[in-house]
Amino acid sequence: MRSFFKVKTAEDIFESLGDIKPLGIESMHIISASSRILVRDIISSEDLPGFQRSTMDGYALGAKDTFGATESLPTPLNIVGEVRMGEIPNFGLSRGECALISTGGMLPEGADAVVMIEYSQMAEDKVVEISRPVSPLENVIQSDDDVKKGQVILHKGTPLRPQDLGILAAMGISQVNVFAKPRAAIISTGEEIVAISQKPKPGQIRDINSYTLGGLCIKSGVEPIYLGIVNDKFDDLKSLIEKVISQADVVLLSGGSSVGVKDFTLDAFLSLKEVELLAHGVSISPGKPTIIARKGNKTLWGLPGHPVSAMIIFDIFLRYLFGRLSGLSKSNEFNNYVIDAELDRNIESASGREDYIRVKLVRSEGRWLAIPILGKSGLISTMVEADGIIRIDINTEGLYRGEKVRVRLF
Amino acid sequence: MRSFFKVKTAEDIFESLGDIKPLGIESMHIISASSRILVRDIISSEDLPGFQRSTMDGYALGAKDTFGATESLPTPLNIVGEVRMGEIPNFGLSRGECALISTGGMLPEGADAVVMIEYSQMAEDKVVEISRPVSPLENVIQSDDDVKKGQVILHKGTPLRPQDLGILAAMGISQVNVFAKPRAAIISTGEEIVAISQKPKPGQIRDINSYTLGGLCIKSGVEPIYLGIVNDKFDDLKSLIEKVISQADVVLLSGGSSVGVKDFTLDAFLSLKEVELLAHGVSISPGKPTIIARKGNKTLWGLPGHPVSAMIIFDIFLRYLFGRLSGLSKSNEFNNYVIDAELDRNIESASGREDYIRVKLVRSEGRWLAIPILGKSGLISTMVEADGIIRIDINTEGLYRGEKVRVRLF
Repeated sequence: MRSFFKVKTAEDIFESLGDIKPLGIESMHIISASSRILVRDIISSEDLPGFQRSTMDGYALGAKDTFGATESLPTPLNIVGEVRMGEIPNFGLSRGECALISTGGMLPEGADAVVMIEYSQMAEDKVVEISRPVSPLENVIQSDDDVKKGQVILHKGTPLRPQDLGILAAMGISQVNVFAKPRAAIISTGEEIVAISQKPKPGQIRDINSYTLGGLCIKSGVEPIYLGIVNDKFDDLKSLIEKVISQADVVLLSGGSSVGVKDFTLDAFLSLKEVELLAHGVSISPGKPTIIARKGNKTLWGLPGHPVSAMIIFDIFLRYLFGRLSGLSKSNEFNNYVIDAELDRNIESASGREDYIRVKLVRSEGRWLAIPILGKSGLISTMVEADGIIRIDINTEGLYRGEKVRVRLF
Repeated sequence: MRSFFKVKTAEDIFESLGDIKPLGIESMHIISASSRILVRDIISSEDLPGFQRSTMDGYALGAKDTFGATESLPTPLNIVGEVRMGEIPNFGLSRGECALISTGGMLPEGADAVVMIEYSQMAEDKVVEISRPVSPLENVIQSDDDVKKGQVILHKGTPLRPQDLGILAAMGISQVNVFAKPRAAIISTGEEIVAISQKPKPGQIRDINSYTLGGLCIKSGVEPIYLGIVNDKFDDLKSLIEKVISQADVVLLSGGSSVGVKDFTLDAFLSLKEVELLAHGVSISPGKPTIIARKGNKTLWGLPGHPVSAMIIFDIFLRYLFGRLSGLSKSNEFNNYVIDAELDRNIESASGREDYIRVKLVRSEGRWLAIPILGKSGLISTMVEADGIIRIDINTEGLYRGEKVRVRLF
């Protein structure tokens, strides 16, 4: 029975992961690119909207002509035309003239503002009375109000939101370069683990981690490759890893990494050619029995068998790793937004390790209360009950009821 | 030119939408069911894990045997066996006996606790000295600790998270019933709108709304059906709507719904058989020129042409509608979590309408600051800059700098 011989802090592990490069580039139409991550800054090649547009239904006119207009003393203007949508007006305006215009219409030469239809009244044929003054540019979008030519409209490393797709469309960019999705091979080990289609005998349990890890991959924009269960036969595990490492960017193995008599995961990782052990044990609870190895630009993770521990290690390290492999910029970290909450109960924590506490969020008196969920890390039901997790620093011995905490949603 | 003749408040509209039933049911494997919404409560058919499990590598024993054990006076116990993983131990323990056990192993008859390997030392062959007392059930998961038979493990209307997939796997449920995804037909109208592949002439702009609305659909678990641009030809629009209403659950038409000379959207909706007009104008800014009609169990939406307005109307009403059509329970509303922030600047608002303000979030001194983004609702760039929106109530005339606001992320 081997002890953990390379226990590392989270900080050490982030450092040893080093500089991680995105994997590759795909070009796709923007209707398929929702949530995908931009490879390059997008710089506008034109002004948007590119012409002076009305934001209202009303009359295009020279603002000067309306100065002093009131309801009791409206200003009469001659209607000299109507702007046809989508066309360049084939007339201009002189003093005392106006033109009917719809929302989105192009202002004719000589107009610098639009009066809403509500502040006008037809006086006689071709004459309208304006009952309110407007300022120059009122109800008008200028040629480069939305976007200026040469401006950076979207930054590389940004996951594309609906409005980002909209601005690409506005610029006529239908095809974008996004980063390729990382692929993660998922393997469960453990002699007590059976496939979910089987009825476990006493002493056995069904494979949970393939599905929680697969779900976390999907949520993180990663393509899972489900490889099922390897029942702790060393040669099977070794040859499976050797085979999948060419197809997957990351190998996620769960179970078999506690300090058991059959420490297959560690042995299997170390048996690979040109492999480097980054960590054997991490000072995180739950999640200590984690093994991390690197072979070339691929990493191999021996995650704890306990479902909660495996999920927390994923959240801390793999979300980070996949973010980098996906080309996500750090300012766009998934789940960048966390919920500020108030702790509902005292929590103890051992110094010398980071503690992660599952919490349930309850809205109370205009703030979120974080209620710790106690329960062993082998119990998946505690994660089902939880809305998120909070972190207790390695140097903190606990948190008091009423303290402000930041909850990462799960 | 027709005025809005049926302006409604948001509250009126929610009321007139009435009770919305989910669309249909699909059965699928849990690896495809991430984020899909459960049709029924899931009730466990068995205890989980179903047997007494160790949570540690160590020795299974009777807790009583360790009472009084210390480092200077350790208690010697006879090792009578080793628990083989995944099997029922073929021996039991009497007083003074223990068995080697790995994490996840099944406790033998007569054992009620596990001592961690770290608190033991081999004394002679088959004898181990225990240097710390343990309580009954310490380091043990009981047969029904995770889930009790007959318990509701997941509630209907819940979108499946990774941990929810995990608990389904644990119960051996590989196939689940989830609600069908709603389908939304997306049409842009407007004579000034051109396809994104075209170079707009002066007076024209490219179609933005198809892509922002499509992106919002995808984000809300809705399948978009992109139908492109109809250039305000009444018959084309009418026949397109008649055709798609059989394939789509909701029709989203944008543009053409401002009080323009060519109020095609309204006319096209009203020309359908057995159609009911729910709203023509809403007291929301931006977003006023919105038309809502119903034909049977389908709704038709004439959204504003301004991209920001259309997105906000989607966020208020369509996210709600699609949630109900998807079978999402209200306690699981998408974006249920909002960010509590402090307003960075005074904002005015007209009484008698709900105002929605785009904001940028900046972290400052342990809290979020919400910085209002001013800019016309025709400018898509303001949504690209925004992180979310805040709502100003219909009866509120504005908000002061420093006031607490709730930001819905966008």
